[in-house]
Parts: sequence; structure tokens; C-alpha cells
Amino acid sequence: MFDDLLDANARYADDFQLAKLQPQAARQFALVTCIDSRIEPLAALGLVPGDAKILRNAGGRVTDDVLRSVAIAVAGLGVTRVAVMHHTDCAMAASTEALRAELAQTARGELGDVELHAIADPDVSLLADVEILRSSPLVPADLEVTGWRYDVTTGRITTVVGAPNRAED
Amino acid sequence: MFDDLLDANARYADDFQLAKLQPQAARQFALVTCIDSRIEPLAALGLVPGDAKILRNAGGRVTDDVLRSVAIAVAGLGVTRVAVMHHTDCAMAASTEALRAELAQTARGELGDVELHAIADPDVSLLADVEILRSSPLVPADLEVTGWRYDVTTGRITTVVGAPNRAED
Repeated sequence: MFDDLLDANARYADDFQLAKLQPQAARQFALVTCIDSRIEPLAALGLVPGDAKILRNAGGRVTDDVLRSVAIAVAGLGVTRVAVMHHTDCAMAASTEALRAELAQTARGELGDVELHAIADPDVSLLADVEILRSSPLVPADLEVTGWRYDVTTGRITTVVGAPNRAED
Repeated sequence: MFDDLLDANARYADDFQLAKLQPQAARQFALVTCIDSRIEPLAALGLVPGDAKILRNAGGRVTDDVLRSVAIAVAGLGVTRVAVMHHTDCAMAASTEALRAELAQTARGELGDVELHAIADPDVSLLADVEILRSSPLVPADLEVTGWRYDVTTGRITTVVGAPNRAED
């Protein structure tokens, strides 16, 4: 089931170029984004391996797992700035009821009380996620956090949630 | 704080090549891996944008958020096989106590009861993560799941947890 991927990896390893990279994020940057297969996080931002920590889940939502991962990236891996990047045409931009019905088609068991983090309103969800990260006790108060939307048909990023007015903090 | 990245994105969008990609994973594959900046998930597996869903958190651990994201990838986005890929020299391969002490240095508030998902033993943690995913009620019983380790100094992937013996299921 996985031989095609492992065969490709053998060829990759035979010509491996990244042996000297360090674990620190060279550009002090972390990106929280969606699992969507149309997004190439590094290329879309002019980054190369070694530059940034990339966090991805369905929707690019700021869940407890993302807070954990960002906290670790900040505490030990040199990250000082984070972008939460949602995108157009996202599968999570649906009602919780519709997503639950879809999952029930393939799940082997009961869905129970799983939190799906559906995106009811793109702007509202993105602002909420940025605020959750900015106010988390797990990260420093001076962590820079922005909210972006990526357009899957143009590759262009728009800033939806900019820097807070520090004078009001 | 983010102008360097947005400027690079403007250049990327001016020469955007991916406008025709579909949301389905063309290779029916999802990868769960770490946020580590040394890993380039697509290139390491011979994949291109459009091929696969990429999930990333600290350690590549199978958390509730990963189960949610895999379930969505399977139900709506064409995924039938998943690899959980941990890696050598991982920052999560530490004791929970050491990680908590490190996070406490930069956290603005109390860590509370945050679950850090430290990796005490690499093989044990990887097997546990594969089993959590294989047995989750949120995914189908026939989802193919494997456990890999990626060596950051060679680029080579080793299969640590292979296919289960279906006759014993």
C-alpha cells in the first residue's frame, strides 16, 4: 500500500541535500494552516526547508493541539511570529451538522461529542482563532500573530487580522 | 513583522501554477508528521501539490485534533491510506517534566494541565499513535495505517509499524 511512496523516498535520500539543517526555525516563523493538498506552505511564502515550523490540521483552526505545538515552537525552536492562514473553498466551511453527516458515512463507530471546528463564517472563525492564540497562557505576551486568507485559485494571501494596536494593549 | 513573507507571496501569486488543482487528494494519501522545519513532506515522498493531505503538530502525535482531521480527509477528500511519520532528533523526545520546565520559561501564564504528548520512547510512542488511529471510531475499519521514522540526517524513511496481519483482525 505504501511502496510507491517508500520507493520515491529512497530516491530522495540518495540525493539528500538537507543534512546540515538545524532544528531552530531560521526565519523565526510558524504557520498554522489547513491540510488542504492545494497549499504548498513554504513555496507560497518564499521559504525553504529550515526556515519555519508548519502546523496543519483540518481548517487551520487554533485547537488545543495547535496551542501546544506553537508553545513548543516558541519555547525551544526560535519562533517569535505566527500566521494563522485559512483558505478559500475549504471543506470545513460547512455546518457542523453537514460535516457530522458526512463523517458518519465512513466512520466505523459513533462520532460521539467530537468537536469538528466547522467554519460557519470565515472572517469570524479566523478572528476567533487569532484571538485564542494571542490570549493563550501558553505563549508569551509579545508573540506576533496575524490572520491570513489564502486564495486557492490565485495563490494570493490577504491579511484579514493585522497587528493589534499595541497602545491599547 | 510579516512583510518579508507577504512580499514573497506576491511574487509567488504573480506566477501561480496551481489554479487547476482539485480538493481531493490525488494519491489518496495523508501524512501525519512533525512541525520540524527540516522535513519537506512532499519532496521526501515524491509527491506534488494536489497529491496528499499533510497534517503536522509537535511530534507528529495522533491527538484528538489529528483524528478529527484524518476523519475529514477520509470522509470527504479521498484519503484511504495514512502514514504517521515521527523523526530522529525530535524536540518532543524528552521527559514531560523537562518540556514543562522549558515552556514555563516563555509562557505568559500557568501551563495548567496541558497534555504535552512528550515522546518517552520513540518506538513505543509511534506504535501507540498508529494503534490510536487504527482503532478510532471516527475512521473506517479498512483505513490503511503505517508508522514511519524519518532520519533528519539522511532523509531516509524506515517502516517501524507495518501493515497488520489482516487474518488476525
